[in-house]
Amino acid sequence: MLLTAKISDIAFSSALIHADDAVSLGVKEGERVVLTSTRTKTQAVTDVHISGKALSSGEVILGRITAEKLQISDGESVSISAREKPASLRAIVKKMDGGKLNREETASIVKDITSGVLSPEEISPFVSAMYINGLDMDETEYLAREMIESGEKLSFSKKPVVDKHSVGGVPGNKISLLVVPTIAAADLLIPKTCSRAITGAGGTADLMEALAPVAFSAAEVQEMTEKAGGVIVWGGSTNIVPADDILIRYEYPLKINPRGKMLASIMAKKKAAGSDICVIDIPTGPGAKVADETEGRILAGQLIELGKRLDMKVECALTYGGFPIGRDVGVNLEAAEALRILEERDGSGSLVLKSCAVAGIALEMAGVAARGSGADAAMHLIQGGKAHQKMLDIIEIQGGDAKIKSSDLPAGAFSYPVEAPEDGYVISISNRPIIDIARAAGSPADHGAGIHMDKKVGEPVKKGDTLYTIYADREWKLSKALKIAEETVPVRISGMLISRVA
Amino acid sequence: MLLTAKISDIAFSSALIHADDAVSLGVKEGERVVLTSTRTKTQAVTDVHISGKALSSGEVILGRITAEKLQISDGESVSISAREKPASLRAIVKKMDGGKLNREETASIVKDITSGVLSPEEISPFVSAMYINGLDMDETEYLAREMIESGEKLSFSKKPVVDKHSVGGVPGNKISLLVVPTIAAADLLIPKTCSRAITGAGGTADLMEALAPVAFSAAEVQEMTEKAGGVIVWGGSTNIVPADDILIRYEYPLKINPRGKMLASIMAKKKAAGSDICVIDIPTGPGAKVADETEGRILAGQLIELGKRLDMKVECALTYGGFPIGRDVGVNLEAAEALRILEERDGSGSLVLKSCAVAGIALEMAGVAARGSGADAAMHLIQGGKAHQKMLDIIEIQGGDAKIKSSDLPAGAFSYPVEAPEDGYVISISNRPIIDIARAAGSPADHGAGIHMDKKVGEPVKKGDTLYTIYADREWKLSKALKIAEETVPVRISGMLISRVA
Repeated sequence: MLLTAKISDIAFSSALIHADDAVSLGVKEGERVVLTSTRTKTQAVTDVHISGKALSSGEVILGRITAEKLQISDGESVSISAREKPASLRAIVKKMDGGKLNREETASIVKDITSGVLSPEEISPFVSAMYINGLDMDETEYLAREMIESGEKLSFSKKPVVDKHSVGGVPGNKISLLVVPTIAAADLLIPKTCSRAITGAGGTADLMEALAPVAFSAAEVQEMTEKAGGVIVWGGSTNIVPADDILIRYEYPLKINPRGKMLASIMAKKKAAGSDICVIDIPTGPGAKVADETEGRILAGQLIELGKRLDMKVECALTYGGFPIGRDVGVNLEAAEALRILEERDGSGSLVLKSCAVAGIALEMAGVAARGSGADAAMHLIQGGKAHQKMLDIIEIQGGDAKIKSSDLPAGAFSYPVEAPEDGYVISISNRPIIDIARAAGSPADHGAGIHMDKKVGEPVKKGDTLYTIYADREWKLSKALKIAEETVPVRISGMLISRVA
Repeated sequence: MLLTAKISDIAFSSALIHADDAVSLGVKEGERVVLTSTRTKTQAVTDVHISGKALSSGEVILGRITAEKLQISDGESVSISAREKPASLRAIVKKMDGGKLNREETASIVKDITSGVLSPEEISPFVSAMYINGLDMDETEYLAREMIESGEKLSFSKKPVVDKHSVGGVPGNKISLLVVPTIAAADLLIPKTCSRAITGAGGTADLMEALAPVAFSAAEVQEMTEKAGGVIVWGGSTNIVPADDILIRYEYPLKINPRGKMLASIMAKKKAAGSDICVIDIPTGPGAKVADETEGRILAGQLIELGKRLDMKVECALTYGGFPIGRDVGVNLEAAEALRILEERDGSGSLVLKSCAVAGIALEMAGVAARGSGADAAMHLIQGGKAHQKMLDIIEIQGGDAKIKSSDLPAGAFSYPVEAPEDGYVISISNRPIIDIARAAGSPADHGAGIHMDKKVGEPVKKGDTLYTIYADREWKLSKALKIAEETVPVRISGMLISRVA
């Protein structure tokens, strides 16, 4: 059936057709249709909505996203037909029924997810099935390989290409802002793509955005990495492993993260970015994604095995993630904390030690530091100022201000110091409440929002000392954050009553 | 945050807000927001879309469905806030993790599905979890009870109220058009709600629509049933068990039908319609939803047990469903076939025998026929013409033409007789190909589309005899249907080569 396109200004992808045309086509509300431009012959698959009003039979209102995909303008002609049932649906039901997916089935699913052939009501059960029934290592490998094929791939002539990843969930884990310039300062390539916060207070992409633009195409990432040695960019705009960006939408609402899918997603991104060597930081502890060291070792083994199957050298660093990393949480606060260490060439503190430990593993794996001396070599690059200069190079090549200083990154104008209710020492700082407070304060959308830990675990406090300070860019968000702080009590003092039970 | 509503003509429910407002609210594309009318105080929960164009900060474009729910007009003020995380999400993850849902958890899920609090990306995993992990009888009972509470309930002073259900999947199973008037002719109430085709060639609601309107409110169904003794209406418009209509959307794309959910859905609808007595037709056989008698007996046991827990008397009729029921498939063809039996008071043929068997069980359960004599009593009502008169009463009370004759229901103008390729007798007629051909021919949207079986299983045929005739309202659909007929060969003749393998 041929229809005349009316293009909507709004950035959605659906097609809206008249009820009479829906009957002729045999499609129902929400089903998928294939659209083909008469002129450009480009195809797009999207969901159809049906209306008796707002348009006539013979017309189709197209969301801007689909119109751009078809490369057509208002008034052009498009052919429309019902989507044929894709083979990937059978594969999804097989996985729901407890079957094991082969490479071909996995390929059909990933391809149909990426191209828009599958609807949300078809993709979501696949994510649920991966979560409930799990993926074995073969299925995980197939998924990783197909995810790599789903988008752009980088390829560098200079070797080795290094990458780094931190398993998420721990607030304040800004170590990429220290690890990437350190590795690049050692004359290794590190094309670091990272994510924005999903449930956290700020992903590395959010933090880096305080220093420079982070949205680039794959070609730009490759070029910038070749020039500056490293980049810290948002993976979402690169079209590297785009299938993952789609799958995440179905994990986010229920905060589920199917293990096999998580492994495939991490390693596919590294492989597609051209990496040969990868070091993975696995924070473990209460309130971290990985509860304890035993679980951390299992995860590490799986990441290493998958890396091997994808022809990458992988090592993992089990780190402590039972409380926030460093003293700051939130976009400007974290970016400033990292930049300050580089500026001051400050080798003290747990944040720089952890960063050097992770960077050091990469330096050893790449053969630029002897086994056992990687962390020292990394520290040398930070204390000698090379890492700072490299970070400014990276900021500059990404279009940021190469003269930026940590003092240029202000905390929010509204703040509140939370005081110790009694004498003692800090026995715990809980990750989830810290994240919830920072998010309520406005993180990561409001760059000034966040938390500064005036005291860390183990430090002695006097009644009335500031335990931590909440910052916000808007007063009402500060109030909201304070309310959560009162409800959750993220910092516990020795001897403090946790709760009185009558 | 207060926004000014701009109401869209289009029947969607989403709210579209400006990107700046989304940042202030802390909501992302596709998340849920709570809207409250400043004037009417009515609330609605829906998904939010974010735009940088097409509207200004301070404005919200509302789909017509949500505007009607809020009872507001263009230019009115609405307050908007991010949805708080509902407790039902924890319950859904519990079910995904293999846990057992209690009554309270089930209630929270069903309530949040019905009210729009849960998004598609949250409802779909619940359906997947029910499919993969199953529901035990307690969970099934809770689900049924909460589904009943999700909508309107009928209540009749005259007792007993009877109901009938056929487990779907077998084409041509139009027995409700015979069973309902027969039971009503025995002076029993039967408020029969039924569904439209989901994957079939025509649901009972589609068939009845050839004879009379089928969309009524619950109050109208109650009133019509009290007056005429019976109705045959579409359940979708009654707001009886609306939660089921929502869940079905997530089953349809993958053609999954979680057992516990299916049991709950069948029995909840009967209970909510006020039934005391229910007879359930379970067609079994190759190509039917229930593959064999053993599986049929298990399903029957589950339906009876669930009925007992909901205080209903349930009996099941295992019937043969390995080929189409009667000779006709498609809206007008099936309605005419049933009406013709009533008009001609024709007691021969398997269709009327099956209908009397099912109606007879109900008559016995209701105490208006002695044990063992129900089918004869039902046949007496058909052969005596009482069932026909009652059917005309039902058609009339639903607003149809009480003088309608089976000859008023034309088959499609385009037809093609499929001939026997050789001599023999019919050994099988396969359900799924028959459905696929009827759907391709236009069923159920095109009322004249369908198939007439000139020969049934067991009948002798000569080469060149018409095996079955395909009807369509549009020529191109007839061609499409013929292509599927050629590919699938739904009718097999003894001695016929199934396939030649080189």
